[in-house]
Amino acid sequence: MRLQLMSWPEVETYLQRRTDIIIPIGSTEQHGPTGLLGTDAITAEAIAWKLGEAVGACVGPTLGVGMAHHHLAFAGTVSLRPSTLAAVVADVVASLHRHGFTHMLFVNGHGGNVATVNMAFQEIAAASSFGGGSVPPVCSIVNWWDGNRVKDLARTLYGDQDGSHGTASEISVTWAVHPDQVRRAEFGPAPAARPWTDAADFRRHFPDGRIGSNPGLSDPAHGAALIEAAVADLAERHAGFAARA
Amino acid sequence: MRLQLMSWPEVETYLQRRTDIIIPIGSTEQHGPTGLLGTDAITAEAIAWKLGEAVGACVGPTLGVGMAHHHLAFAGTVSLRPSTLAAVVADVVASLHRHGFTHMLFVNGHGGNVATVNMAFQEIAAASSFGGGSVPPVCSIVNWWDGNRVKDLARTLYGDQDGSHGTASEISVTWAVHPDQVRRAEFGPAPAARPWTDAADFRRHFPDGRIGSNPGLSDPAHGAALIEAAVADLAERHAGFAARA
Amino acid sequence: MRLQLMSWPEVETYLQRRTDIIIPIGSTEQHGPTGLLGTDAITAEAIAWKLGEAVGACVGPTLGVGMAHHHLAFAGTVSLRPSTLAAVVADVVASLHRHGFTHMLFVNGHGGNVATVNMAFQEIAAASSFGGGSVPPVCSIVNWWDGNRVKDLARTLYGDQDGSHGTASEISVTWAVHPDQVRRAEFGPAPAARPWTDAADFRRHFPDGRIGSNPGLSDPAHGAALIEAAVADLAERHAGFAARA
Amino acid sequence: MRLQLMSWPEVETYLQRRTDIIIPIGSTEQHGPTGLLGTDAITAEAIAWKLGEAVGACVGPTLGVGMAHHHLAFAGTVSLRPSTLAAVVADVVASLHRHGFTHMLFVNGHGGNVATVNMAFQEIAAASSFGGGSVPPVCSIVNWWDGNRVKDLARTLYGDQDGSHGTASEISVTWAVHPDQVRRAEFGPAPAARPWTDAADFRRHFPDGRIGSNPGLSDPAHGAALIEAAVADLAERHAGFAARA
Amino acid sequence: MRLQLMSWPEVETYLQRRTDIIIPIGSTEQHGPTGLLGTDAITAEAIAWKLGEAVGACVGPTLGVGMAHHHLAFAGTVSLRPSTLAAVVADVVASLHRHGFTHMLFVNGHGGNVATVNMAFQEIAAASSFGGGSVPPVCSIVNWWDGNRVKDLARTLYGDQDGSHGTASEISVTWAVHPDQVRRAEFGPAPAARPWTDAADFRRHFPDGRIGSNPGLSDPAHGAALIEAAVADLAERHAGFAARA
Amino acid sequence: MRLQLMSWPEVETYLQRRTDIIIPIGSTEQHGPTGLLGTDAITAEAIAWKLGEAVGACVGPTLGVGMAHHHLAFAGTVSLRPSTLAAVVADVVASLHRHGFTHMLFVNGHGGNVATVNMAFQEIAAASSFGGGSVPPVCSIVNWWDGNRVKDLARTLYGDQDGSHGTASEISVTWAVHPDQVRRAEFGPAPAARPWTDAADFRRHFPDGRIGSNPGLSDPAHGAALIEAAVADLAERHAGFAARA
Ligand code: NI
Ligand code: NI
Ligand code: NI
Ligand code: NI
Ligand code: NI
Ligand code: NI
Repeated sequence: MRLQLMSWPEVETYLQRRTDIIIPIGSTEQHGPTGLLGTDAITAEAIAWKLGEAVGACVGPTLGVGMAHHHLAFAGTVSLRPSTLAAVVADVVASLHRHGFTHMLFVNGHGGNVATVNMAFQEIAAASSFGGGSVPPVCSIVNWWDGNRVKDLARTLYGDQDGSHGTASEISVTWAVHPDQVRRAEFGPAPAARPWTDAADFRRHFPDGRIGSNPGLSDPAHGAALIEAAVADLAERHAGFAARA
Repeated sequence: MRLQLMSWPEVETYLQRRTDIIIPIGSTEQHGPTGLLGTDAITAEAIAWKLGEAVGACVGPTLGVGMAHHHLAFAGTVSLRPSTLAAVVADVVASLHRHGFTHMLFVNGHGGNVATVNMAFQEIAAASSFGGGSVPPVCSIVNWWDGNRVKDLARTLYGDQDGSHGTASEISVTWAVHPDQVRRAEFGPAPAARPWTDAADFRRHFPDGRIGSNPGLSDPAHGAALIEAAVADLAERHAGFAARA
Repeated sequence: MRLQLMSWPEVETYLQRRTDIIIPIGSTEQHGPTGLLGTDAITAEAIAWKLGEAVGACVGPTLGVGMAHHHLAFAGTVSLRPSTLAAVVADVVASLHRHGFTHMLFVNGHGGNVATVNMAFQEIAAASSFGGGSVPPVCSIVNWWDGNRVKDLARTLYGDQDGSHGTASEISVTWAVHPDQVRRAEFGPAPAARPWTDAADFRRHFPDGRIGSNPGLSDPAHGAALIEAAVADLAERHAGFAARA
Repeated sequence: MRLQLMSWPEVETYLQRRTDIIIPIGSTEQHGPTGLLGTDAITAEAIAWKLGEAVGACVGPTLGVGMAHHHLAFAGTVSLRPSTLAAVVADVVASLHRHGFTHMLFVNGHGGNVATVNMAFQEIAAASSFGGGSVPPVCSIVNWWDGNRVKDLARTLYGDQDGSHGTASEISVTWAVHPDQVRRAEFGPAPAARPWTDAADFRRHFPDGRIGSNPGLSDPAHGAALIEAAVADLAERHAGFAARA
Repeated sequence: MRLQLMSWPEVETYLQRRTDIIIPIGSTEQHGPTGLLGTDAITAEAIAWKLGEAVGACVGPTLGVGMAHHHLAFAGTVSLRPSTLAAVVADVVASLHRHGFTHMLFVNGHGGNVATVNMAFQEIAAASSFGGGSVPPVCSIVNWWDGNRVKDLARTLYGDQDGSHGTASEISVTWAVHPDQVRRAEFGPAPAARPWTDAADFRRHFPDGRIGSNPGLSDPAHGAALIEAAVADLAERHAGFAARA
Repeated sequence: MRLQLMSWPEVETYLQRRTDIIIPIGSTEQHGPTGLLGTDAITAEAIAWKLGEAVGACVGPTLGVGMAHHHLAFAGTVSLRPSTLAAVVADVVASLHRHGFTHMLFVNGHGGNVATVNMAFQEIAAASSFGGGSVPPVCSIVNWWDGNRVKDLARTLYGDQDGSHGTASEISVTWAVHPDQVRRAEFGPAPAARPWTDAADFRRHFPDGRIGSNPGLSDPAHGAALIEAAVADLAERHAGFAARA
């Protein structure tokens, strides 16, 4: 049930039954020499849509541009500043809350969004805390790769070559979604994860964009299995989330 | 050529040939009793993608949530505040400009975005005007329905029943894109266009969300023809735009 | 009836009879080699004051500095950033609304203000739309030169040499208001209208500041006639505006 | 020499000789039962214009709406929030600085502007201090009534009945500028000055808007003498200010 | 009674008796060749704590970083922009107001904070004035050195060598608080007070950071006496402040 | 070496040797029926000061008010909004960076600060990433309780009764710092950790403010040992941090 493919009376009917919603949030950023710029949006959206089917929940519009300033030294990356993304999250949440949605689960495709989105949730709640007003909506952000099923599967498939950016896993998922976008190549070892500051610093440490990953191991069939695993992981999370009082 | 389906080296290659980009911008808002909430995003995206093919240009990520506060009294509408949308546009433009894109054509699916997006373009340029810095990118926003071919076709198809919100035209386009989403119904006459203030005022004047439109006339085949007309109209606009010095 | 020349009890009395107000908004920006920097403020103010007399309405303080970043490469231009002007409009509207004014017609002297002022109106209304609060005031911005009487007269007087910046019309109006400020000169043809980005780009395209205009045709007597035409045009607009429910 | 009555080449010529400018800043706020809402703008503008003549300096556009939230419980008051006024001052200063103005003296008609305008000057300078950039312009705000000549004259004319809002002095000045706006009345004693918080609190303490003043003593002839005294006071201040390195 | 050393039930109990609070606000900025960077925070805190004891009032957390951009050309200075400090003050006031505190006296150690803090108080009150809401808290900022006892004592101790930054007085106070931090040195005459713009300009005029002061006269015993004098001065101010209706 | 107890020439000398700095950041918020409101500031400051001694690093001013909106339903809590705290962090970092500090380690006493402070670091770096400017400083935030030594010790001392707010550990640390502030009491079991939204929701779930903790187990001697453990843990972290290129 995708909100963008519903009419307003259909949403009204939905809200009489339940008041939770799933919101895919991704990013548009480099994913190594062969990864798609839209990887994080494509994965979050595909998994959120299937999660919506699995749990019968409405899925809101995909937020396809996230907080990815550190990838800006690679062509094609499109980023919001953290403060801009926080404003976007605040307005999306306020819009949905106005209609009566009370539980908003952001299914996330990009680690770089997490601090900002949590800060945005806190800014929203703070407005109520300062004013003594009504209880704000219950909001949470969850990465699609953080559940045990996905972690186990990725370890089985890629061992220590999954990496943490331009991962073998996420590239497999994009290939499962877009089988016509498979780009195979040979990869040397990628630099291991370490901290960075800005885009120039990131590129200095990770010259082709990958962090610890070997996308040469990716496969569309893996992607399908990872999606299935992610949906199972997230369905559990969703059950607990939707039950929060 | 969709940016989200390109890798960063492919964007780098593209930028050696040309530096223009097309950005679909829509909205997630009520479109009458049967229209899809995603209508303005779906239409803008579909037309922008085909325009990209027609003129060989790269098409950036779709901005699917726009400035639609006045529709918030109808369930499912998701809006940004004008100031938030302006910040989004500023960051998207700055990201692309950093990579060397110089001409950014926003293909728009929602009239409510226009003032804010133009204000955002001016805010970006003002930063340069105040500081005496370098020439900012060339930015423009164009509605897909504003060319002569679309106007003529819509008049032929719907006479004075196209309306100005939840239009017969746009609903036809969404049906051409999503043939499984056709929702037929009978419609009485819709209130004629007139100004409004906020969401409550909008709903008071337009109780089912339509302005002057009769979506009972919509048809998927019309949608296909309207897309073709829009692409032809916009290709002309794009030629002039991309040539601006 | 100028608000700045009224006492607070007089405004209170006015508000018992009617709740509309007219607000002149202009700009302080170059107007070609001989045009006054204050042209857009002078014209808006003079016409708004006469409109106020014509329709019996109160006229608020003139907002004499507008959104004119693109003129900053010419000495003397004073501009607000779009976001600043939007904040000014928001506060002015909120002040007047607090007193009970419900209809605020901005009489505009500068095309560059329009997108920002409309965005500001939307930001104000959005605050209500998001919160579900009370109906915000009815706000509209109208250019003094956009009515048929002015357009016809300008065409009669100047044919295709009125232009779109530093126009023969507006310079005539300033001379009618300030007969001691007539500066006559010979003018070669001015570049035709075309888009621009920032101040440097504007000056590159329009080296002496004019767009398509021949102020050599201006005359104080024209100015007086143009003011009269503008007031007649705007009085019609005002009648419809003040009647909006 | 009023900037709004100059052309851009004339400003360019002026800047070859000297780089100081005077900017009138006032307010639109209640001034007691008979005082004009525009009092602070009218007085600041009239005195700034005469000061400009006296010292040969250019006088910029009048900022006629200031920071007057505490008067909003009286009809007709129009106020900016402090943060909005600070943004206005920042943009005006930046505009003038871009042209080469280096010394900007704000001639002030309203005590409520002072903290905010000084904060704005500090915000402007802080941008340079944080970045290590170039020396920002020299900015200062001076109240027209703060010099010794004005203070002595007001004491002579009104003793302890001048007050601190809706003063006999300022009302005399408005009458000198607008002799057709004299409104005579009998006044009882006004409450003495004391602190306040918001508009409701202000009105509670000062029910007719006056603080300690007796406008029954005002006279147009006083106004003319006060203007002369203020110009003499300010000309001294200006000399020191313009000489600051 | 320091808030940071109280539990929440103890604050609740306090609020049943009285609703005033004292908040120390200082700065972290250069204070000449030997003065401590924390001088303004140390002095404000020490005096506020003793004032709290003297009048039985609760003392909130020290705001130790203030508005000191003009000192940034000296190593170690830490400053907030004015707009940031205004936001801090707004949130601190709102937090305390939510609990029922109605009177908040900021005891200030740094002249550079005054305009911004007053602007912040006005921004807080303006929110109420625009909305017509409830009476905001009574807020005031007072410099510890502005009372007569301190002024007399400083004049007696240092004559005209106290200065206005890195003063002999404030350095004595820091030595009374931190006897292990006495740094004695010989000082030549310091430049007299004069205006400045940014940090570079400040350093140009005041090369070692002092304005008119001779810290060679400072003494820990003076500091103890100055603290006593300041507390006596401020206790008088506090009495009037806490009684404001 | 506390920055606030140094003079500017001493900081200059320090910067010739090394360019790292430690910044304590805490909060002022309820810590259960007996915990001090300043707990998170007191603990962060005490540990940061000792860490500074241990590693020879300069320690900046304590940021004693953090992001604690969810505690605002308990008297005495003082919070910044997330956006305000982000602005504070940005200005503090910019101030220190201007002097040549390149590595800034925030020693944190409050979990609620983490998302916002990380978002602030990203906002700072994004300014560089968008503009292509110089490498921003290396910033990191570390909780004092997150190292293995502290975790082991807390488990040994309190088993599963340490909790996650108003912890037995942190209360012990405050008692080690302020032995005169020991408040002993008997405690029933505290509710286990679970998510919350705003202040009212927090208080609903955690009526006396504790989350899972038993401060009845706290002891000043534990506090001294915990401080020692934290300093050892953080000294390791600091070594890696200061070595980052
Ligand atoms: Ni990714
Ligand atoms: Ni539409
Ligand atoms: Ni004009
Ligand atoms: Ni006044
Ligand atoms: Ni000081
Ligand atoms: Ni704590």
